[in-house]
Amino acid sequence: MTATTLIGKSIPRIDSPQKVRGQTRYTADLTPPGTLIARLTTATQAHARITGIDTSAARAVPGVVDVVTGADLLPDGPEPSERARAMLARDKVIYYGQPVAVVIAESEAAAEEAAALVQVDYEPLGVVIDPRAAMQPDAPVIRPKAQEGEWAEAQMHATVQGGEEVDVNRLPDNVISAVRFSRGDVEQGFAEADVVVERSFTTPSVHQGYIEPHATLAVPDPLGNLTIYTATQGQFYARTVTADTLGLAQNQVTIVPMEVGGGFGGKTVLLEPLVGALALRTGRPVKLVLSRMEEFLLATPAPGAVIDVKLGAKKDGTITAIQGHVIFDSGVYPGAPAVVALLILGGYYRCANLDLIGYEVLTNKPGVGAYRAPGAPQGTFAIEQAVDEAARALGWDPLEFRLRNVSAPGDPQPNDVPWPEMGLREVLEAVRDHWQQRTAGPNEGFGIAIGGWPGGIEPCAANVRVNTDGSLTVSLGSVDITGTNTTMAMIAAETFGVPVDRVKVVTDNTDGAPYAGMSGGSKITYTVGLAVRAAAEEARRQVFAIAAAELEAAPEDLEIVDGKVQVKGVPDRSIAIGEIARLSMTFGGKYEPVYGVGKSAVTARAPGFSAQIAHVRVDPATGEVTLLGIVAAQDVGRALNPALVEGQIHGGVAQGIGWALHEGLIYDDNGQPLNPTLMDYSLPAAPQVPPIEVKLVEVPSSAGPFGAKGVGEPPVIPTAAAIANAIADATGARVTDLPMTAPRIRAAIAKAE
Amino acid sequence: MTATTLIGKSIPRIDSPQKVRGQTRYTADLTPPGTLIARLTTATQAHARITGIDTSAARAVPGVVDVVTGADLLPDGPEPSERARAMLARDKVIYYGQPVAVVIAESEAAAEEAAALVQVDYEPLGVVIDPRAAMQPDAPVIRPKAQEGEWAEAQMHATVQGGEEVDVNRLPDNVISAVRFSRGDVEQGFAEADVVVERSFTTPSVHQGYIEPHATLAVPDPLGNLTIYTATQGQFYARTVTADTLGLAQNQVTIVPMEVGGGFGGKTVLLEPLVGALALRTGRPVKLVLSRMEEFLLATPAPGAVIDVKLGAKKDGTITAIQGHVIFDSGVYPGAPAVVALLILGGYYRCANLDLIGYEVLTNKPGVGAYRAPGAPQGTFAIEQAVDEAARALGWDPLEFRLRNVSAPGDPQPNDVPWPEMGLREVLEAVRDHWQQRTAGPNEGFGIAIGGWPGGIEPCAANVRVNTDGSLTVSLGSVDITGTNTTMAMIAAETFGVPVDRVKVVTDNTDGAPYAGMSGGSKITYTVGLAVRAAAEEARRQVFAIAAAELEAAPEDLEIVDGKVQVKGVPDRSIAIGEIARLSMTFGGKYEPVYGVGKSAVTARAPGFSAQIAHVRVDPATGEVTLLGIVAAQDVGRALNPALVEGQIHGGVAQGIGWALHEGLIYDDNGQPLNPTLMDYSLPAAPQVPPIEVKLVEVPSSAGPFGAKGVGEPPVIPTAAAIANAIADATGARVTDLPMTAPRIRAAIAKAE
Repeated sequence: MTATTLIGKSIPRIDSPQKVRGQTRYTADLTPPGTLIARLTTATQAHARITGIDTSAARAVPGVVDVVTGADLLPDGPEPSERARAMLARDKVIYYGQPVAVVIAESEAAAEEAAALVQVDYEPLGVVIDPRAAMQPDAPVIRPKAQEGEWAEAQMHATVQGGEEVDVNRLPDNVISAVRFSRGDVEQGFAEADVVVERSFTTPSVHQGYIEPHATLAVPDPLGNLTIYTATQGQFYARTVTADTLGLAQNQVTIVPMEVGGGFGGKTVLLEPLVGALALRTGRPVKLVLSRMEEFLLATPAPGAVIDVKLGAKKDGTITAIQGHVIFDSGVYPGAPAVVALLILGGYYRCANLDLIGYEVLTNKPGVGAYRAPGAPQGTFAIEQAVDEAARALGWDPLEFRLRNVSAPGDPQPNDVPWPEMGLREVLEAVRDHWQQRTAGPNEGFGIAIGGWPGGIEPCAANVRVNTDGSLTVSLGSVDITGTNTTMAMIAAETFGVPVDRVKVVTDNTDGAPYAGMSGGSKITYTVGLAVRAAAEEARRQVFAIAAAELEAAPEDLEIVDGKVQVKGVPDRSIAIGEIARLSMTFGGKYEPVYGVGKSAVTARAPGFSAQIAHVRVDPATGEVTLLGIVAAQDVGRALNPALVEGQIHGGVAQGIGWALHEGLIYDDNGQPLNPTLMDYSLPAAPQVPPIEVKLVEVPSSAGPFGAKGVGEPPVIPTAAAIANAIADATGARVTDLPMTAPRIRAAIAKAE
Repeated sequence: MTATTLIGKSIPRIDSPQKVRGQTRYTADLTPPGTLIARLTTATQAHARITGIDTSAARAVPGVVDVVTGADLLPDGPEPSERARAMLARDKVIYYGQPVAVVIAESEAAAEEAAALVQVDYEPLGVVIDPRAAMQPDAPVIRPKAQEGEWAEAQMHATVQGGEEVDVNRLPDNVISAVRFSRGDVEQGFAEADVVVERSFTTPSVHQGYIEPHATLAVPDPLGNLTIYTATQGQFYARTVTADTLGLAQNQVTIVPMEVGGGFGGKTVLLEPLVGALALRTGRPVKLVLSRMEEFLLATPAPGAVIDVKLGAKKDGTITAIQGHVIFDSGVYPGAPAVVALLILGGYYRCANLDLIGYEVLTNKPGVGAYRAPGAPQGTFAIEQAVDEAARALGWDPLEFRLRNVSAPGDPQPNDVPWPEMGLREVLEAVRDHWQQRTAGPNEGFGIAIGGWPGGIEPCAANVRVNTDGSLTVSLGSVDITGTNTTMAMIAAETFGVPVDRVKVVTDNTDGAPYAGMSGGSKITYTVGLAVRAAAEEARRQVFAIAAAELEAAPEDLEIVDGKVQVKGVPDRSIAIGEIARLSMTFGGKYEPVYGVGKSAVTARAPGFSAQIAHVRVDPATGEVTLLGIVAAQDVGRALNPALVEGQIHGGVAQGIGWALHEGLIYDDNGQPLNPTLMDYSLPAAPQVPPIEVKLVEVPSSAGPFGAKGVGEPPVIPTAAAIANAIADATGARVTDLPMTAPRIRAAIAKAE
């Protein structure tokens, strides 16, 4: 491991003081003079033809400037197949809550009042909510096959190689993609097995649970250009989608990425094209902030899934076959990462015989989006229960059974791509002592599960400048949603050789920022960190070149000591870093400005693995679960700032507890959401989160900065499975449906008895 | 000259549409929520000790939040010697109108009312207004020698090599700098002369005449950092001064350079430290917009000068000696460029015998600042009349006499630095036909004069990125005050190979921008243009490298045609520029993002020369001048955008007319300004500006982009002298004092008669 002085230390986030004092400005806080407020009129049917829209009552409300419908904004032709591009419904609505019209008014009150007065007439169509029903040949058709789109959002998070594409044209209309991975002969594998576990699992659609609602402010200029202030995790992606949707050149759209008050994958691009269109239409700034209920109705939750798994194993602990049938419920637009679930079903463990098929299916529900490790909690909930059940049936210790089977670097994934260097075995070993020393009280149980994320990659750049007082400024295109800017300051300081408080990290807007992809896929530290390190190295090289000329020494004989560049061991021959910068930025100067640019296009992935132990107590009479503790070991490569890394793991586990025990969007048969409020949709609060013991495992990545790997996504993945296995340990009953509510647990116990 | 397709064409300024529609937002237009308004209480004495300040009445005005005095803001020790750093007077006031206190209030009305109620008690001190009087040993002392500062602003515009520093410690206190250039033996030179002209010239302090007043908005954050929105020509300089003055690290100050509604050198840094201090003090946004009268009282006008010239010449046309004695009136702070006047007195013409001495003298007037070609109009008004008078006395044609004597590349300047490549002879030759064909009607006359500017240099950088729709974004640190961003778009488009409407140029703030110096010294196109060209070349190289890999061709076999990179002559083997960008900015991509950085640290200067002919009619009874026409020839190296270059020349000539006939700040003996309003201070308006015929001369610079030289400063320099020479031609009378008002001309005529 590289020797470092700053990397590896826990320092506070540089953005904390403003946030804890409530002085951070979010998009909703911005109201330039003349701003108009937009409010939506949303669909009250989940699938219906629009036969008429009467806006006269809305227009009569004093202060209303305009009432806009889909016919005003969308060109003729097929309706867009991506949530943000489909600004308003046009011919029909396809989910309950879909935006149908938008009122623009001088005040929030006027907009709100008028939005409720827009009269929409519907001719109902058949509604399909369950993805299994949607796959039937006679199911209501949500969009004709010809309108299929791309897997835009999922591709942000994981790309796969290999896999057999199934011809979806031979499948019912609502099935919009299908992928199959197979290897060996599963029937033969099951025949060789001493035990075969076969289970069907379901997971519901889940909301990302960010606290800040989506908020976008668009400010037009007289040339038809837009400046859009918005809470986005990916400013360049938001720019591309907005420019494309509105028929503008990318240079006509400036995205100013504001603070993101929680994103978790759910804040990519949503309102930007719509609000931009309204600003261009009115020539005035327009702001739209979603209500909490609208977040549930018309944003982009995580997809629900139906996962059937059949797993065979021998007494010697060998897994002989895995068969998987995966249906991801994509809502009304493409984008559900069924393929990620397949890679997880067949990837964690070595297995000679695989047959995995996954379908992406449309239903009359909001189109899905990314949520921390898209597809992985779902797949892991299934495979990690099946493996656990097989181990217990064979009399194997669940941890040792996993160690017996886990994939190692070089083993093939389901798509035959070999696993790269990774710390899967190491995270299991890191919790072994804990596991062996577990002691369950009455009605208590322990469960273990693993979870892994392949690790995202994307080209990016960064620059480092040196100021005339010797401080550094790092300019980035990546949005800081997890404390990454603090880590970037550390990387620049460590690399250049100054204290971290001399470094400022700036997230610039799309006009000025070096490119970075969306903050997602656990890739910012791994990729942008490399660019920052390279930029700081380059800035240091430039500073040394000037110092060498001024001190009449060779660059390799120089060192940085206390803010000065000096001839090694000769403090008398030195020049302050700030003075070097000044020489390069002064009237008549002869040195080019110090301006270090670094880039990264790393192609090696660094998967991140987590192993978690859950300790639960279950009341057998009620099915109520009390979480007594979670141990979470994670291979982070190198913990650049351990406090931030632990914070990520705490957050991921807390969200995993939400998946496990609390969350799930519920729709009735007509597609109406039944729990679209934070009163009804249960997010875990502090009392529901037990003590979390974090064990940082450091199997360095040879590519990542200082050995780091992505850390954001792995911790959410195994939690639900670990809790399910703990419930099984405590009760003998398997709960196969998320969330594992008390009634469901009680029912499982009753069935087991 | 390099063959170009776009360079050399006149295209409209890219910022015009917003400006002509009145939709450009200036600093004064910004009022974030919670903004406090600041108003100044200013000195009513020009030199006085402050014996007391009573703020109680001001504080009692409803809405007043604070009343701040110098004692609140300035540390103990010598008072700052730079206008912006001397935020408020502390122990004494040294010029009429100096800020003494500042009121911060919830409204403009409250601040205005309260500022008038601040009661300041003074104990008067002696006032000195005339710089000649200020040089007397018994003159009132404005600041002790020990407090002398640096020539901060003048150094932004011209640095000189050589010259003999006179020991100012042996001179009276108000003389703060002195420089002498000498060569040969002037007494011998005058002895050899057939004619000796000896004249004393005066020029007054002149206001830059920008329409937008100084305006600064400072927004604090809870960490003590500042974001300052301000009309500045030099954001990095403003940041340095603000951070230094307030004791902040440069990283704690972000300067957002707003549109500059006229600067001409007068908008560098003025209010930023004061307003920043107030924002930190209150924790709220604070805005200060100067009134028009405050602009005259307390901003930074151009210095007045007293210039004595003695010039000898022989019948054969040889100039045998030039003696010059120059006093620049610096007001209360150092910064008057007497040295520039010396270089002009002894530099335009070859002369074996020189003795030039210049003094910078303090008086009880506002500290001076830069104004388009600082020091040059003053020096040129003197030398170009003396030369003209000598030519006429010797019977030489004034144009031919100049051609006989003008310096050529390689000839020594007064500081013995050889003149670099330049087009001085060429601009005179360009107006020769015009001069020879002149025909004067009754009471009419023609005058000719030359003027030159050495050309500023400063290191800088720029970057060029490529967007996924194939458009380019150029990011700069330079402020566009003359249309430079339009020129940069042309340079990037020409170099990269796309249409200019595919290029967006962005002036970023100090957090994100590549370094560029102040927009002054006629150096932005000359230096930043080189950086943009290098950045576009580098971006093109990166695009070709990716295209080469994708097309399996060598980069040198590729060309750009219609937005695509193709194998030369093989349109079938091509890839769109936008697709290349996309490949470098996509999830899982293997190419680094296209990000071209260019730098420039050019050390060769490219002086710009102008030759102007003025045609006047003078009413001998009243002395009233009617300008009938100006011909202005200027060597611009290469006119990258001729319309913009001609616009610069029109503007410079108009301002030169102001110097010549209209402008001048007038002070009474007590130091009170007598014409501090636009009613009393006469700027030339459209009726005062005659037809201007521009002749662009192109003697390419071997260093500048596509041969370009700086064009902003030269056109203002010779105008006053050309008009004076025309008046002499019409009347036989020499007017030696600016502005050449009707009474002064009448007096000169009377004296000549």
